[in-house]
Amino acid sequence: MLGQMMDHPLLISDLLTFSAQYHGDTEIVTRTVEGPIHRYDYRSAARRSRQLAQALARLGIEVGDRVATMAWNTHRHFELYFGVSGMGAVCHTLNPRLFADQLTYIVNHAGDKAVFVDLTFVPLLEKLADQLQGVEHWVVMTDGEHMPDTSLPNALCYEDLVEAEDGNYDWPSFDENTASSLCYTSGTTGHPKGVLYSHRSTVLHSYAACMVDTLRLSARDSVLPVVPMFHANAWGLPYASPLVGAKQVLPGPGLDAPSLVELFEQEEVTTTAGVPTIWLGLLQHLRDTGKSLGTVRRVVIGGSAAPRSMIAEFQERHRVQVVHAWGMTETSPLGTVGTLKSKHEGLSEDARLDLQAKQGRAVAGVQLRIVSDDGAEQVQDGEAFGELEVKGPWVVGRYFRTEGEALRDGWFPTGDVATIDHDGFMQITDRAKDVIKSGGEWISSIDLENEVVAHPRVAEAAVIGIHHPKWDERPLLVVVAKPDDPPTAEELREFLQDKIAKWWMPDDIVFVDELPHTATGKISKKDLRVRFENYELPTA
Amino acid sequence: MLGQMMDHPLLISDLLTFSAQYHGDTEIVTRTVEGPIHRYDYRSAARRSRQLAQALARLGIEVGDRVATMAWNTHRHFELYFGVSGMGAVCHTLNPRLFADQLTYIVNHAGDKAVFVDLTFVPLLEKLADQLQGVEHWVVMTDGEHMPDTSLPNALCYEDLVEAEDGNYDWPSFDENTASSLCYTSGTTGHPKGVLYSHRSTVLHSYAACMVDTLRLSARDSVLPVVPMFHANAWGLPYASPLVGAKQVLPGPGLDAPSLVELFEQEEVTTTAGVPTIWLGLLQHLRDTGKSLGTVRRVVIGGSAAPRSMIAEFQERHRVQVVHAWGMTETSPLGTVGTLKSKHEGLSEDARLDLQAKQGRAVAGVQLRIVSDDGAEQVQDGEAFGELEVKGPWVVGRYFRTEGEALRDGWFPTGDVATIDHDGFMQITDRAKDVIKSGGEWISSIDLENEVVAHPRVAEAAVIGIHHPKWDERPLLVVVAKPDDPPTAEELREFLQDKIAKWWMPDDIVFVDELPHTATGKISKKDLRVRFENYELPTA
Repeated sequence: MLGQMMDHPLLISDLLTFSAQYHGDTEIVTRTVEGPIHRYDYRSAARRSRQLAQALARLGIEVGDRVATMAWNTHRHFELYFGVSGMGAVCHTLNPRLFADQLTYIVNHAGDKAVFVDLTFVPLLEKLADQLQGVEHWVVMTDGEHMPDTSLPNALCYEDLVEAEDGNYDWPSFDENTASSLCYTSGTTGHPKGVLYSHRSTVLHSYAACMVDTLRLSARDSVLPVVPMFHANAWGLPYASPLVGAKQVLPGPGLDAPSLVELFEQEEVTTTAGVPTIWLGLLQHLRDTGKSLGTVRRVVIGGSAAPRSMIAEFQERHRVQVVHAWGMTETSPLGTVGTLKSKHEGLSEDARLDLQAKQGRAVAGVQLRIVSDDGAEQVQDGEAFGELEVKGPWVVGRYFRTEGEALRDGWFPTGDVATIDHDGFMQITDRAKDVIKSGGEWISSIDLENEVVAHPRVAEAAVIGIHHPKWDERPLLVVVAKPDDPPTAEELREFLQDKIAKWWMPDDIVFVDELPHTATGKISKKDLRVRFENYELPTA
Repeated sequence: MLGQMMDHPLLISDLLTFSAQYHGDTEIVTRTVEGPIHRYDYRSAARRSRQLAQALARLGIEVGDRVATMAWNTHRHFELYFGVSGMGAVCHTLNPRLFADQLTYIVNHAGDKAVFVDLTFVPLLEKLADQLQGVEHWVVMTDGEHMPDTSLPNALCYEDLVEAEDGNYDWPSFDENTASSLCYTSGTTGHPKGVLYSHRSTVLHSYAACMVDTLRLSARDSVLPVVPMFHANAWGLPYASPLVGAKQVLPGPGLDAPSLVELFEQEEVTTTAGVPTIWLGLLQHLRDTGKSLGTVRRVVIGGSAAPRSMIAEFQERHRVQVVHAWGMTETSPLGTVGTLKSKHEGLSEDARLDLQAKQGRAVAGVQLRIVSDDGAEQVQDGEAFGELEVKGPWVVGRYFRTEGEALRDGWFPTGDVATIDHDGFMQITDRAKDVIKSGGEWISSIDLENEVVAHPRVAEAAVIGIHHPKWDERPLLVVVAKPDDPPTAEELREFLQDKIAKWWMPDDIVFVDELPHTATGKISKKDLRVRFENYELPTA
């Protein structure tokens, strides 16, 4: 027997209509690509998004068509989020930091029919345009005055397009499972894969994002997403903010610390969100200038693990609460958030920081579990670890236009190895492909590396698994020593002896001059594994 | 084109599973009907709910069957909320305060197959049992020791039933639109009507309930719902609390002020919710004893309008934030909540209270509009009024087993007349059936009455519409004067002259000794209209 409540689909356009109606005069402030600050309100943003939808229809964009954006966080990008999805098309955010061949692959694989591009990225796309045969329309996100001379075929001007329409447009209603947006995730191997979000997943994620123990958004907040709108929906903030009527402050291309601090001050920002790299620069700037964070009350840190010292500096020096979050493009992205419980109120500052340095507990609606190689669920005691799997209404089900299953037994395997403690706090201890599988048990390469680099005469270290005839894999430690007084292998073994389980001790230690790194500065385990492909352990 | 996210239904059982997993040791504390305080945690509550589901299955309860409860707010009632809905049956909460014939009608109309009853209400149901032929099982919600000698046929003992099962039970998964629970609303005319909630509507309502600008629930809250679980889902708190892992404090039958204050203190309650009548008694008790509200930070007031003076006393004397909410059984029930915006931060205390005394702004996901008699949407300027209509995923679509449409043009007409201001704050000004429709314009009976009772020599007043050949209806003012020095009709007209629009002036004023009242003490306009059915206005 079915319930008899209204059949009311969860649609992205409703988020904007809601804020236009009940928070019509709440502001959206943008540092534009052209330079000046632009400000308008939700009522105007809603009207302009409807005009955009009309313009898209006039261009021949139909329900289900992919419309790409390559753009900073601006009011025009916000209008695209709602105008494209609201009319039933798919808003496909392109990451301008990808390599040219990845971008070409992605645009062609997605079958993008139109591309909206910020002035900044016009030169980048000009170089690729002749390989992007499916793109019928190129739209430069600027006004007539700033319209560049470009080789993009028949390039249109965003403002001309929008201003030509009257905004008398009713958002269509349709199945809430309709595709709304698309974001590709570039794995370390193979082609990038597309996550195709739905209106339903996006609206549900918005509710979860706003909750007190998630990002705690309300109509009294002024939100500045530093995280780009081309990164996993800017963590859902462009959708969550209109749901509660929060003011939005969009930094455009100005991601340097002085520009951010200026907006924090001028727009009375209460909540901001970004990756650790951004905050390193910001904290340095604040130390250098002696400036404060003013009205900022919460800093959301995600994208990669927030160092404990960073959390401490925000909280102790700046009296700003850190919200440490974990997620993936495949999880919309919010998966876990490190908000403390009442039982933690009595903890020492040190113990609180330890807890906050973990990835946090499941956002309401997300299910987590850790499983061993054979799929057996591990206990959640903060000690046992296994590959992290997630489930929930805003978790990917299949990759777009890709053969093969994204799920394993109904769960999405994240590729991370983690522990979960009694209170549900999850901590990532390794990548699944980096963990060393020794006799059916797992050894965390990251834990081992952290112990080794604590040695005062070690500059850098990496641990990889090497094939072993008896144990399947055993750890090999690869070390870059500090030049003056390098430690011996024996010294390192002694150093590790009382810090790790006996069976975690590397079977061999190799000293090298340098380790291979990825473009983003991480140690490339992939390259290291290639280099030691045929290495034979002395224990083999 | 559909999105490709997980197909993950929104199910009530997931709320409990979530809290059991991530907030397993968070407490649920009950003042039992038997007397003592009972305490356990979400992990135990989840296990006991699974045991209950097993017991229900053993009794022959199947998917879609209605299982009624007549019970206070206790841990057993909480288990029924989850055990019954979780297994796919329908949890039907009965209001013990209804008249016997209403209860008989409701149980038979719903087709309840089992009734779970608290000790308190066993005598009440014993009198009705032989008219409730469809009920196959009577279960008394107590343990063997307290099991009464009862004439309820084959009465079972709740604890015996639950303890006989092992809890090794997996909640079934099904369509999220499956019926989950049922609550009847007793209108002033006709039979009570049933609202049949779904898993989807309940879970979505839970997300909305927790939000910062709604009830602001988090894992750090201790929530005491005074509002009964037989009243519109206790405003959603039994579902919302496990979603965030909030501690729950259930007052059982102890709704008197001293019992509540004792629980506030002992259980460090942060949030409580109830109707104005409860708070009148509580505030009086606090004045009498000089006690404080301790850790309580928020008091949710709903069910009927919170008087401005009550809001002021909570906020000024007790430094407790009042959350003034409006809703109906048909809206799950949360429709609007009076949380202020940042623009209101600079307001004087008086101006804030004026705003807080309104019914508030739409909960995220609810759409409101006001329409005139001919269905035309009215402007939202805080002045224009019309009948309030609502829309949203947790608003009723049809009444259970009832002919005829519950909706009008896709909207649910609330029967209330309201204004909505620029910021979305809604204020109920009248009941639609009480408003006076004069020449196509509406006159608020409540506004007129409020002006009249401000006269120092008026004890009570009511305004009703009387048929008028030209204007359709015109207002008749019916007054109970204070005995000593009654005002004349002319004096009242003069008194009103500069307070109301000229065309609002009543066409006649009648003095009576007393006005008819309802059982709950309100003026019965219905009886008054009968009494003046054939009244002829002097202007006719």
